[in-house]
Amino acid sequence: MRVTELPTPALVVDTVVFNRNLDTMTAALPGPRLRPHVKAHKCTALAREQANRGHTGFTGATPHELLGLARAGLTDDLLLANESVDDQRLRALADCGARVTVAVDSEATLDAAAHNGIREVLIDVNVGIPRCGVSADDAGALADMARARGLEVRGAMGYEGHAVLVPDGAERARLTDESMAILRRAHESVGGPILSGGGTGTYAVNTVATEIQAGSYALMDTAYAKLDIPFELALAVVATVIHTNPKWTVADCGLKALGMDHGNPMIAHADVRFCSDEHVTFSPRAPVRVGDRVLVWPAHVDPTVAYHDTIHLADGPSLDSTVIDRWSVDLRGWNEPG
Amino acid sequence: MRVTELPTPALVVDTVVFNRNLDTMTAALPGPRLRPHVKAHKCTALAREQANRGHTGFTGATPHELLGLARAGLTDDLLLANESVDDQRLRALADCGARVTVAVDSEATLDAAAHNGIREVLIDVNVGIPRCGVSADDAGALADMARARGLEVRGAMGYEGHAVLVPDGAERARLTDESMAILRRAHESVGGPILSGGGTGTYAVNTVATEIQAGSYALMDTAYAKLDIPFELALAVVATVIHTNPKWTVADCGLKALGMDHGNPMIAHADVRFCSDEHVTFSPRAPVRVGDRVLVWPAHVDPTVAYHDTIHLADGPSLDSTVIDRWSVDLRGWNEPG
Repeated sequence: MRVTELPTPALVVDTVVFNRNLDTMTAALPGPRLRPHVKAHKCTALAREQANRGHTGFTGATPHELLGLARAGLTDDLLLANESVDDQRLRALADCGARVTVAVDSEATLDAAAHNGIREVLIDVNVGIPRCGVSADDAGALADMARARGLEVRGAMGYEGHAVLVPDGAERARLTDESMAILRRAHESVGGPILSGGGTGTYAVNTVATEIQAGSYALMDTAYAKLDIPFELALAVVATVIHTNPKWTVADCGLKALGMDHGNPMIAHADVRFCSDEHVTFSPRAPVRVGDRVLVWPAHVDPTVAYHDTIHLADGPSLDSTVIDRWSVDLRGWNEPG
Repeated sequence: MRVTELPTPALVVDTVVFNRNLDTMTAALPGPRLRPHVKAHKCTALAREQANRGHTGFTGATPHELLGLARAGLTDDLLLANESVDDQRLRALADCGARVTVAVDSEATLDAAAHNGIREVLIDVNVGIPRCGVSADDAGALADMARARGLEVRGAMGYEGHAVLVPDGAERARLTDESMAILRRAHESVGGPILSGGGTGTYAVNTVATEIQAGSYALMDTAYAKLDIPFELALAVVATVIHTNPKWTVADCGLKALGMDHGNPMIAHADVRFCSDEHVTFSPRAPVRVGDRVLVWPAHVDPTVAYHDTIHLADGPSLDSTVIDRWSVDLRGWNEPG
């Protein structure tokens, strides 16, 4: 089947670009230097491609993501880089057969982990983004408390989420250095072999973290594509033109097929005007006809993939490429199957 | 089970408000005066509640939505208020056992409908929003062409999507009148008993359309709640607080649990700062603790519901309410099961 024969809207990945993205990252951060974050792609088949390149430890943002990786046999070393106080889900993680490490940033999250049989933790440190993480000053005391509860403290984690998309490379590096100085200071009182952090935007400049939690690099999006990083757009939504007139054109890829928090998607040789639930209105610079297919490039990969149940793999970049495989987006949602 | 015991994030509906919303709309637009749009809720169990109140004709934005309604036995009168040139899906609609009417706005969409066995159409007219729809001047010729292909033309459709969310009621009414004057003019040359249009924001001021395609009124969202309409917020996402500090608080309801195109969600007695993939950072005006639940009210209901597989029904408005039923969000996505 050709890409143009897919029912639309549908996620399609150019496997040539995708493999190049993966190889580029593996060359830069071999083996355990990269702990791929699966929240960007939510797909165990894609994670297996990362594992095949030597990255067998993974990062997830939800227990569901980690439980899915475990079910898929990717059990080496799974990090929940997020806080949870859900007894049932933490217990499921403790019992899933994988090595599981959980981020904790408070007595409550630490108690929940210990109480539900989690054995290993990272102390999550706030390094600048107003989200989770204990202050660096309090990190050591929390690590002591964890050890007193019988937990193994593997080290510290701090995500410089406020830096990863900063357009100016020098400023991005400066913010990363600032964040990692905080993480390093916290780590001195926390101990353990791991400093976990980083993302696609900072993978090359974050030299403090012992492991980088990048995820978007594999598929990319138009927000990350603006940065000075060597990864290219691999994921698009293929859509069908359903209306044309002299002033604008409409295709069937809307709000429910795209994460919109980073703004409108991109269509090549066209100006995108706006998205509705099931429509994108755009002004093409070359004539298109009803029934034609277009590639719509999302601004934010994570919430885009989360709307779809399947990723279609194509053997090249164009609409005339062939669909060579399909992957299930099997890590989406929050609840276990059944 | 209480709402506070749900694994989070989870959609929860206050059935008291929900039933009041439905009853209010049924009183205003009884029976076939309302053709509920299912794109806002994507749930056949909810559609059945609308049918039980006398609204047995439905509107959908995708073939998948209509096929799901047909499978659920809601077969009386289904309108695809959108263009499609997908042969397989149009054929499935023609063969699904329901009365199906399809919007057409060009020779190509009309040909696709006729070719795949669709028997009834509405002529979709552009009434002001830059999206689908033939110009009013060309509507009559398209209706003639449809009849020449053997299609039954049931009338004209025109959605005043640029009016439905205009805050000022008088301006909203003026834009609606302007749009409906275009629809009425088109209809004069199209013929047929139906003029279909309208939405939750214009249901009371659109007196030209013979049937109103409102959908958001049932569950509502913070964007529609700003208008002078008698529907209240029935749908929230329940989330768990996972981090607190003196400056901000974080709960586990992020970008992937919320449609973000209308902006940040609302949390009562709090200022919402921003959302990440799995987090909302906010400043509560009363103390909260890790493990507490909060209700997060989405800005746009349609893309919010589309991220979830289940709607939980509660017997009241508060977090202490009881979960009395669960509905599957069975109309999401674009592809038939299996």
